[in-house]
Amino acid sequence: MTSTPTPGAPSPGTPASSLDPAIAARLRRGADGLVPAIAQQYDTGEVLMLGWMDDEALHRTLTTGRCTYWSRSRQEYWVKGDTSGHVQRVRSVALDCDADTVLVRVDQTGAACHTGDRTCFDADVLPLAE
Amino acid sequence: MTSTPTPGAPSPGTPASSLDPAIAARLRRGADGLVPAIAQQYDTGEVLMLGWMDDEALHRTLTTGRCTYWSRSRQEYWVKGDTSGHVQRVRSVALDCDADTVLVRVDQTGAACHTGDRTCFDADVLPLAE
Repeated sequence: MTSTPTPGAPSPGTPASSLDPAIAARLRRGADGLVPAIAQQYDTGEVLMLGWMDDEALHRTLTTGRCTYWSRSRQEYWVKGDTSGHVQRVRSVALDCDADTVLVRVDQTGAACHTGDRTCFDADVLPLAE
Repeated sequence: MTSTPTPGAPSPGTPASSLDPAIAARLRRGADGLVPAIAQQYDTGEVLMLGWMDDEALHRTLTTGRCTYWSRSRQEYWVKGDTSGHVQRVRSVALDCDADTVLVRVDQTGAACHTGDRTCFDADVLPLAE
């Protein structure tokens, strides 16, 4: 999940976002101003990864055709694939019934996971009780 | 997303969870002690909903065969389908590469969404820029 940061990007919760006010008005953010964003491969249904978006990241995802997330660890925006080449082309974006989660259907180039796995959920399957 | 609460359940972050210590040691929780949990229909790939789990909810999900979440609004555990009948039978559970998100593949009975929709992402598709 590497990317090129966007210099000078505002912090989450900054009201300077260009997100459609009708969407911003119903978006229910966490205490950190973010909502979880699930990336799913549009045709196979694979759940590729989960990232985080603030208003501006959602706006960029809706308007640029490329998935943009907010990195909680680096505190900056990142466009998936900018450094790895493993881009996510946006096919559709939906909010859930509570407007507190985003589902982005994408066309993922190559591996979604920074480990090289196709998805971030391939490597650590937990044991179920018998 | 209705359910029957579990009376007397501990709050998130309470160390009384019975979760396997090897899993608890690598789980990376948010400031509220929770991780997002994506529920996906195991065979069709549909992303059904996103809920939240603390250690104990994850433990119960791994050991009871039924998806258990922590309700942030009601501050209690809920077993999906206990009141609605729309149960989620657990097929597999995986952590992501950062161990901060759970993917649960389930067999969903009926509608996953409390609105009656099959998934929580069916009703609010956002417009993309041309």
